[in-house]
Amino acid sequence: MSRHIPINRASVYVIRFMAVVAITCVLTGPQAGASDPAPRPNIVIIFTDDMGYGDLGVYGHPTIRTPNIDRMAAEGQKWTQFYTAASVCTPSRAGLLTGRLPIRSGMCSDVRGVLFPDSSGGLPADEVTLAEALKGRGYATACVGKWHLGHLPEHLPSRHGFDRYFGIPYSNDMDAVPGVDMEKQLSPKIGYWNVPLMRDDQVIERPADQTTITKRYTEEAVRFIQENKDGPFFLYLAHSMPHIPLYASEAFLGNSPRGLYGDVIEEIDWSVGRVIQTLREEGLADNTLVVFTSDNGPWQMYKTHGGSAGLLFGGKATTWEGGMRVPGVFWWPNSIKPGVVEGLGTTMDLFTTACHLAGADLPDDRVIDGLDLRPVLFGDDQSPRDRVIYYRRQRVHAVRMGSFKLHLWTTDPDQIYTQPDAQDPPLLFNLDNDPGERFNIAADHPQVIDTIQQALQSHRDNLEPGRDQLAGRIEPAAE
Amino acid sequence: MSRHIPINRASVYVIRFMAVVAITCVLTGPQAGASDPAPRPNIVIIFTDDMGYGDLGVYGHPTIRTPNIDRMAAEGQKWTQFYTAASVCTPSRAGLLTGRLPIRSGMCSDVRGVLFPDSSGGLPADEVTLAEALKGRGYATACVGKWHLGHLPEHLPSRHGFDRYFGIPYSNDMDAVPGVDMEKQLSPKIGYWNVPLMRDDQVIERPADQTTITKRYTEEAVRFIQENKDGPFFLYLAHSMPHIPLYASEAFLGNSPRGLYGDVIEEIDWSVGRVIQTLREEGLADNTLVVFTSDNGPWQMYKTHGGSAGLLFGGKATTWEGGMRVPGVFWWPNSIKPGVVEGLGTTMDLFTTACHLAGADLPDDRVIDGLDLRPVLFGDDQSPRDRVIYYRRQRVHAVRMGSFKLHLWTTDPDQIYTQPDAQDPPLLFNLDNDPGERFNIAADHPQVIDTIQQALQSHRDNLEPGRDQLAGRIEPAAE
Repeated sequence: MSRHIPINRASVYVIRFMAVVAITCVLTGPQAGASDPAPRPNIVIIFTDDMGYGDLGVYGHPTIRTPNIDRMAAEGQKWTQFYTAASVCTPSRAGLLTGRLPIRSGMCSDVRGVLFPDSSGGLPADEVTLAEALKGRGYATACVGKWHLGHLPEHLPSRHGFDRYFGIPYSNDMDAVPGVDMEKQLSPKIGYWNVPLMRDDQVIERPADQTTITKRYTEEAVRFIQENKDGPFFLYLAHSMPHIPLYASEAFLGNSPRGLYGDVIEEIDWSVGRVIQTLREEGLADNTLVVFTSDNGPWQMYKTHGGSAGLLFGGKATTWEGGMRVPGVFWWPNSIKPGVVEGLGTTMDLFTTACHLAGADLPDDRVIDGLDLRPVLFGDDQSPRDRVIYYRRQRVHAVRMGSFKLHLWTTDPDQIYTQPDAQDPPLLFNLDNDPGERFNIAADHPQVIDTIQQALQSHRDNLEPGRDQLAGRIEPAAE
Repeated sequence: MSRHIPINRASVYVIRFMAVVAITCVLTGPQAGASDPAPRPNIVIIFTDDMGYGDLGVYGHPTIRTPNIDRMAAEGQKWTQFYTAASVCTPSRAGLLTGRLPIRSGMCSDVRGVLFPDSSGGLPADEVTLAEALKGRGYATACVGKWHLGHLPEHLPSRHGFDRYFGIPYSNDMDAVPGVDMEKQLSPKIGYWNVPLMRDDQVIERPADQTTITKRYTEEAVRFIQENKDGPFFLYLAHSMPHIPLYASEAFLGNSPRGLYGDVIEEIDWSVGRVIQTLREEGLADNTLVVFTSDNGPWQMYKTHGGSAGLLFGGKATTWEGGMRVPGVFWWPNSIKPGVVEGLGTTMDLFTTACHLAGADLPDDRVIDGLDLRPVLFGDDQSPRDRVIYYRRQRVHAVRMGSFKLHLWTTDPDQIYTQPDAQDPPLLFNLDNDPGERFNIAADHPQVIDTIQQALQSHRDNLEPGRDQLAGRIEPAAE
């Protein structure tokens, strides 16, 4: 018997890495090995705002109680390396709904990070959203919650394939009245933010009463499911919470040991339970894919009003793992193979996966970044995704390939509004072995760095950035 | 409808805190409300070495695969605020086996942190171990794995109530041969550490072949269960892993994305699965309490060879949460009410709880710090524990009461071998709201600090420290 440990870990990782690179060159069209459990299933995507990787029981939070989401994970798949398309709201949502990196649609900008109430832009009309793709296959479609892809009439959900809309069209901390400072943000009153609540294209309440917003979004979602139980339907339930200012309904206020932030997550967990319960009651559980995820990591500057990235480093507005790796839970009883998935996935993959499930053609006149996750959801295959490109605004800050992540630029998580730092030489981390990004191993792996740099160069060479949609502002009225 | 959030969180926490203090004054004898599911159940305690709070799938690790422990938690209770009696090996183990703070038995020292191969001391003969208490009720008893409570003949498990012993009697990185440095620790060969493997009181192998140690401990544990299936039995399975140097059996080497540390944890998870499977096969599942926990937090200076405390701060040898809060999973099908428990518990409580389950009298001539957790395990009651006292060596570094933790002394997690820092004024954290100990709120809660200080003074006034058992060294042989 050998008394040596007969491995060189670094070599093992590099071999795996090269294998991943090689496999990728073979993968072109839709994945082999995927079999669809049912034609045209209902699709429900539940999307939270600024909830961190570590904010759910099943992802390790000690005092936030999320029994419904935990059960959803136990009955389905818990993905531990699932990513958003960006580390802030607007580009993240554009990525999810188009299956494309936000740089392609122009939904990220070096001028402004997201859309604001004075923004004139929005998701371009020629982008194909998941709602439009599914409508083409006869789906009823609803967007409930935060939109944040343009609030002028031409950019609203109704122009992007949604039959219905009910929600606050941008962030719930916008339209602040004068004098709202950090202290007021942490002890919020409704009147501090004059945000509108819309039904379809009309403002129906202003300021929106946010104390009941999670509850009202949930009721709207349940009603949509009930009214469309003959299906198929696509529900995009994008909670305004837990973005600050935090609000929870009276039934949840003061309940969580984690404080107000915990109350808010526990109400979202209740909401998830209501959606699942409705699907069961209507006999739709076996014919509905439910995905639960978040738009980006926690807004850490708000201290206990911000969430936790768990063991990951960094948060919202950074390209550290804490900024873009989020919970990703997939549920579909008797179809999804229950388990924990370490393979890579992104919110953009939801577009492609849902299109395949619905039998919708992917747009063939543009680059689609989303990949088809069906081989993992319904089979034993590895994820087809081998890489993640971490954009911040219009610049690539980092690239993950296989286990390795290369940082070219980083943002100080405590100073997210300052200029990013160039990393030259770049930093390299092995995320499988070091998920907290603690140990820079760049010096040990020049070849890995070279391969990633080449892949990035190839990405850049083939990229056609969309026209910046976030920079424009509404002209002040003449009067 | 009020549009104000009608709460003052700080007040809520303080009210809860005072309620906890009040309730505690009422609790004296064994808890009301506990009903025992079965007389004299088998007791299995699986204890790992230096595994962190964040190192299991069910506690949030993204790339360490622990399906057996995850299932154990899903079928039983996952405690999220479960503590060890100390942040290093020897005192932690003394606390678990005696139900007493190690200061009382003299099993912590200001001279040496733990017992070493040249130590003359060990657990005093007049301490009552859980094995002795259960033996008095007819239990067969076995200790498999790391002992670390004295390796001279008079201190071995056989002198403390165990019918059988099989294991390495102290840490697996002791007895290092000359020249073993950090680099060798991270690329371990067997010959670097001349540690003995013992069966009962005899050394049967030296150096112990650690590459198969987890596997051999498991086989021994399974054999003990099978041979004592007519019960009752007490199995204390104290793995030598994942203490450095790390070793995994050939079947696990190179499997885990998390590297060697992950291989080691995944082999421990396999071991847990084997124990559970054996209990099921022998028809003992309904009559056996299995507890899985760790002796202290991760040894972070060993980088990727050390574990992760998840979202907690600090690790082994510190009194930050990462040093003493550990996974705590309780399993007993059809008896334990499945769920997540946020109540406080400690390894010392295992002593008291197991004694009650076995119908064994608690020693009445000494202070027992362990509390009876049966009301939580088998009922809907709150944990009887309202506080945790964090000793480092012979000094109280911190005290938790309810949500609040007061730090009087702290240790820099990156400099665990330097002198601790006095915190004057002390630091105060709300652990329910801020488990990562990020936001010192001492200035806001003078009354809480005063109450905790009074409780600590009362503890000190009533404390009779045992004679230091760790300072003594074996006299060099005359020849």
